Amino acid sequence: MLYLVGLGLSSVEDITVRGLNVVQKCARVYLEAYTSILMAASKEDLENFYGREVTLADRELVESSSDTILEGADKVDVAFLVVGDPFGATTHTDLIIRARSLGIPFEAIHNASVLNAVGACGLQLYNFGQTVSLVFFTDNWKPDSFYDRIKENRKIGLHTLVLLDIKVKEQSFENMARGRMIYEPPRYMNIETAASQLLEIEYVRKEEVYTDNTPCVSVSRLGSPDQKFVAATLGELSEIESGEPLHSLVILGHRTHEMEIEYLLDFATDKMKFQKAVETEVEAAVELPPPVTADEDDD
Amino acid sequence: MLYLVGLGLSSVEDITVRGLNVVQKCARVYLEAYTSILMAASKEDLENFYGREVTLADRELVESSSDTILEGADKVDVAFLVVGDPFGATTHTDLIIRARSLGIPFEAIHNASVLNAVGACGLQLYNFGQTVSLVFFTDNWKPDSFYDRIKENRKIGLHTLVLLDIKVKEQSFENMARGRMIYEPPRYMNIETAASQLLEIEYVRKEEVYTDNTPCVSVSRLGSPDQKFVAATLGELSEIESGEPLHSLVILGHRTHEMEIEYLLDFATDKMKFQKAVETEVEAAVELPPPVTADEDDD
Repeated sequence: MLYLVGLGLSSVEDITVRGLNVVQKCARVYLEAYTSILMAASKEDLENFYGREVTLADRELVESSSDTILEGADKVDVAFLVVGDPFGATTHTDLIIRARSLGIPFEAIHNASVLNAVGACGLQLYNFGQTVSLVFFTDNWKPDSFYDRIKENRKIGLHTLVLLDIKVKEQSFENMARGRMIYEPPRYMNIETAASQLLEIEYVRKEEVYTDNTPCVSVSRLGSPDQKFVAATLGELSEIESGEPLHSLVILGHRTHEMEIEYLLDFATDKMKFQKAVETEVEAAVELPPPVTADEDDD
Repeated sequence: MLYLVGLGLSSVEDITVRGLNVVQKCARVYLEAYTSILMAASKEDLENFYGREVTLADRELVESSSDTILEGADKVDVAFLVVGDPFGATTHTDLIIRARSLGIPFEAIHNASVLNAVGACGLQLYNFGQTVSLVFFTDNWKPDSFYDRIKENRKIGLHTLVLLDIKVKEQSFENMARGRMIYEPPRYMNIETAASQLLEIEYVRKEEVYTDNTPCVSVSRLGSPDQKFVAATLGELSEIESGEPLHSLVILGHRTHEMEIEYLLDFATDKMKFQKAVETEVEAAVELPPPVTADEDDD
């Protein structure tokens, strides 16, 4: 059996009891280590907590040598550990499709991921539109397909969760060209870079999808003891110091509900300015969609 | 400290190790028992697993008498257990806002909820739009605001997760009017009712938001040992027998990716028909949005 085990967001103890039992009975345990990281735990912490050896699985192993991971999994149990929930990245779906084609049974053990835990910032999950990803820009590569998607979300008043790039075990172009197996230090996009990149694209595209004054929430170290939310405008967020990774960003939509605002104001650097930014947002929406009725959406 | 502890989806062992440690040290433990249920565990199962007493918290207690739950939580630890993730329902946000106003510190312990675990059906989470809720229709109450939201999602090609109504400890109008504290047996909406209600509104509104032939996935008992997905048209789903609760439904959008289809076909009752329904969907989309690029969205 192949077990895909979600580890949750931060510490070794964020694994579920079921997940822990599975890890402890498996013949081999792999830790997927390139689409995300556990913020408060190293591979050694995990090994100590589980009382067993864990093999790091980098992109090459998972994407090019997945049969190594799956070897014998029709007879013995293999655990593939994933930060967050196992279905957070398409790359894990690939692994399942491969397992299915080899006739290997599999089971997922779910856990929290940023996609549902982001509710902790006070924004209601049913007010979110599609999630977008933002990659590190280079001088000549600034992919901006997220812009069209944020536009779609904002047009109908929905919040957008922006997932920020993580670069782990990446090679420089030079090292790659020369075939040197030398890797760059890991990089995790912070809030100030994300906000700046978002604004950079707005300045180029000029479709007024969002502005310096658009209300946002920065989500830092979600689910860890020093989790932090900052409610501020996008312009303000481009100048904060967001600190240690991991980070995500939410761009508010005009459907923002009063209770959401009440919750968020506690995280505002400048309450008056933030409230004003939200009001401007709501007023700018020409046609408001029907309001949320408590009976239909509360539970 | 008030701890909001997510229990995950199905069994007692779906709690995280951190959550279990917290429950075991708290002075009082409440189980929120009206917005969802743990499929494979009763209150007694939880009590046996935790080795301690658990108090059921119904809607009245949480919404009208929340100060009972919060009493003394500035001095002792109180756990409030929630199926799924603590931020899945607005009612829990109310409790936090109340705690904040009383100066009671709080902490959330996250877990999987249907909003992220639904990825197990093979549809990519970043291809979902806003989530909608569907309540049980009565003869004279058929709220249809979900219809406009599904329309918004489908217009831009996104999938829609439809959460299905749960009625726990509800009174009949007659008993309520007469002040009798007699409760109806719990009801959980199944797939066939959901699909029929969705189609009923389409027949009335006639905006062709979806049809009998729209491809969908039924999601039954997600995260439990007898979890089941059925990929079929909405018309077909209105006639299946979906069995024991809980259920959710996903309506596919035209942005459906090839890998999503490959994964889903395994769950199709009629592979040819389902594939054809998806193709019709894609062809009907006049203007396709830019395709997902692997580099930006895979991780």
